[in-house]
Amino acid sequence: MLIVQKFGGTSVGDLDRISSVATRVAKTKKEGNDVIVVVSAMSGETNKLVGYAEHFSSNPARAEMDMLLSSGERVTASLLSIALNELGYPATSMTGRKAGILTDSLHTKARIEEIDPSVMKDSLKEGKIIVVAGFQGVNENGDVTTLGRGGSDLSAVAIAGAVGADLCEIYTDVSGIYTTDPRIEPKAKKLDKISYEEMLELASLGAKVLQNRSVELAKKLNVNLVTRTSFSDEAGTLITKEENIMEKPLVSGIALDKNQARISLMGVADRPGIASEVFTKLANSDVNVDMIIQNKAHDGTTNIDFTVPLSDLNDAKEVVAVFFKNNDISTESYNDKICKVSIVGVGMKSHAGVAAKAFSTLASQNININMISTSEIKLSMIIDEQYAQLAVRSLHDAYELDK
Amino acid sequence: MLIVQKFGGTSVGDLDRISSVATRVAKTKKEGNDVIVVVSAMSGETNKLVGYAEHFSSNPARAEMDMLLSSGERVTASLLSIALNELGYPATSMTGRKAGILTDSLHTKARIEEIDPSVMKDSLKEGKIIVVAGFQGVNENGDVTTLGRGGSDLSAVAIAGAVGADLCEIYTDVSGIYTTDPRIEPKAKKLDKISYEEMLELASLGAKVLQNRSVELAKKLNVNLVTRTSFSDEAGTLITKEENIMEKPLVSGIALDKNQARISLMGVADRPGIASEVFTKLANSDVNVDMIIQNKAHDGTTNIDFTVPLSDLNDAKEVVAVFFKNNDISTESYNDKICKVSIVGVGMKSHAGVAAKAFSTLASQNININMISTSEIKLSMIIDEQYAQLAVRSLHDAYELDK
Repeated sequence: MLIVQKFGGTSVGDLDRISSVATRVAKTKKEGNDVIVVVSAMSGETNKLVGYAEHFSSNPARAEMDMLLSSGERVTASLLSIALNELGYPATSMTGRKAGILTDSLHTKARIEEIDPSVMKDSLKEGKIIVVAGFQGVNENGDVTTLGRGGSDLSAVAIAGAVGADLCEIYTDVSGIYTTDPRIEPKAKKLDKISYEEMLELASLGAKVLQNRSVELAKKLNVNLVTRTSFSDEAGTLITKEENIMEKPLVSGIALDKNQARISLMGVADRPGIASEVFTKLANSDVNVDMIIQNKAHDGTTNIDFTVPLSDLNDAKEVVAVFFKNNDISTESYNDKICKVSIVGVGMKSHAGVAAKAFSTLASQNININMISTSEIKLSMIIDEQYAQLAVRSLHDAYELDK
Repeated sequence: MLIVQKFGGTSVGDLDRISSVATRVAKTKKEGNDVIVVVSAMSGETNKLVGYAEHFSSNPARAEMDMLLSSGERVTASLLSIALNELGYPATSMTGRKAGILTDSLHTKARIEEIDPSVMKDSLKEGKIIVVAGFQGVNENGDVTTLGRGGSDLSAVAIAGAVGADLCEIYTDVSGIYTTDPRIEPKAKKLDKISYEEMLELASLGAKVLQNRSVELAKKLNVNLVTRTSFSDEAGTLITKEENIMEKPLVSGIALDKNQARISLMGVADRPGIASEVFTKLANSDVNVDMIIQNKAHDGTTNIDFTVPLSDLNDAKEVVAVFFKNNDISTESYNDKICKVSIVGVGMKSHAGVAAKAFSTLASQNININMISTSEIKLSMIIDEQYAQLAVRSLHDAYELDK
């Protein structure tokens, strides 16, 4: 097999950890696989360099930041390569440039445009392990660029796609994707397999493991992703095409998002287009609106309820205040003591009754559902924050996710 | 003027020092000059990285070391560029690659083969200050190479040559070249100007400031070198073509080399070619022979005296032992309690009497001269080590170098 293995900052956090990574990579090679390794900077290094830059400027040129920050991954890549050579496994380190990673010119958050895998393929043919400095590429002028947060994961996925790897393993300090947050429900089980779509909907469960950007790229490039831990040999979670998952579970996982606020606008003026005006203004202020409910009151005016991320609440309030001042709204109220519980599973596509079970489960716990939204593979419910953990646990039980 | 300014590790040793360097560079630019800056890694960084590599291997691949070590200069270059931008002086950092520095493929001790200054020239035309990561280039495959010890000085000199700079300033923690070591003779004076040739002969005086490799390159490329300190505004020493020095001093400086040992071979067999056989064997053992004296004894055999660096003494002894065993030599003796005092000056070419004054000066102090060698601009004398300081001081006086 051709395997891409990506090790994040904590996995290469010090010299001993790098030795452990070398041992793991060597083992993979010894088992008969071709291996491309993608590494992050040693944990703390990137923050240290950012701190240096901030000493000089609160707004340093982005191209200079890329020159600065791209150095950390080079250090890890060469050290790991040296460690592998010492173990008797010929290895060669490569910068993003050498690995053929071409990006656009959006410094500090560049997007990969193309990968020319020919140099990597030549090295693989020579039997070498390749160690690529993650997080970086070059633009068409040959200037170094970096890919922004989670950039090394993107490097790994894009490389896996370009070389046609059988597997792209993302190693972190977390062992995989769980049916729900184990800190809330200790009976949470690690998932063996999950589809790209489910993973995207379960973003909050995977937030510490994988960014949506990487999952989306894996989906686009048809890359079999595995998230697993570098601290043990425990198997991880495979994220793959839905077709590759034989037994499609009704529900795969339950996600909780406490970072939500609800805005209620009552007595919205009975004038065409007022709702669209509200949401256009919100969008222009970069407020990310999630759920929306709209219904007509008995007096002919309209009530509009919607949710936004907590971090957007203040911006949203400013937008709404203008409508209130113009008497387009009679009452406005905010609630930041809410949360969103989501049930995700590809099986929901073909099975009825999933929603009914969720409603009855929460009702039996006397938990009131404030808002509901559904998609093909997801059911999300807004409830009061104090019931968050109770709701997750009872739903986890109801769908027998611990079985 | 177009000025290249090179700042070594201690000059960019911490963030405050980098700020000071930025202020100095900005001042140079403000005075109407075009500036290219060449920087080393922050002091301690390169050693830290070498230590990391040694954790994994006692003999790491040289190409990997280049990938590893070249990162330090990139960090300094981008930080200085950020600092300059913040001061309101548009600056752009460049790797060795971007600056067009092409080297051979001798990783960790590459030689610069060619510099394509077109990218630098374009940036200068835009009014930008260029900050180049020193010590590094790329080979014809595009792989990063480093230039070995003193490599950033070489980068600076080579760049100055390629862009036709008026001046190449090398900033260190030493203020220039002195007539002799000020720790031996407090009356030592800083030289305003000195020729390349004198500087090369005075190597030991400049050892902490400039390596011969950089002086040789400056001479070849006709680059006006200035060594000065980054810790004050004190003027430094200009190293230039002899023709540029109007008043040619009889003697420019006095160098002392304590790192010498003398080997005496007596009763060398009266057989043709024996001396050449000794020195061939020494050369094959990489022993660096400096001075040689040979004279015939009354019994028809020959005595040969020569000096080697202290570090080569053991190797030299091994070579000589074979001749002793074969009875080609009757007596061998060693003396590592000697030193070499050298008087250097371009004026010696055209003035007689320099040597006579040296001999009489030492004689007046009852210092015995064991060996003598001369070149066009240098007179070297081997004396007993205990007289080293006395000899330097009395010669410094005799040639009135403190005037």
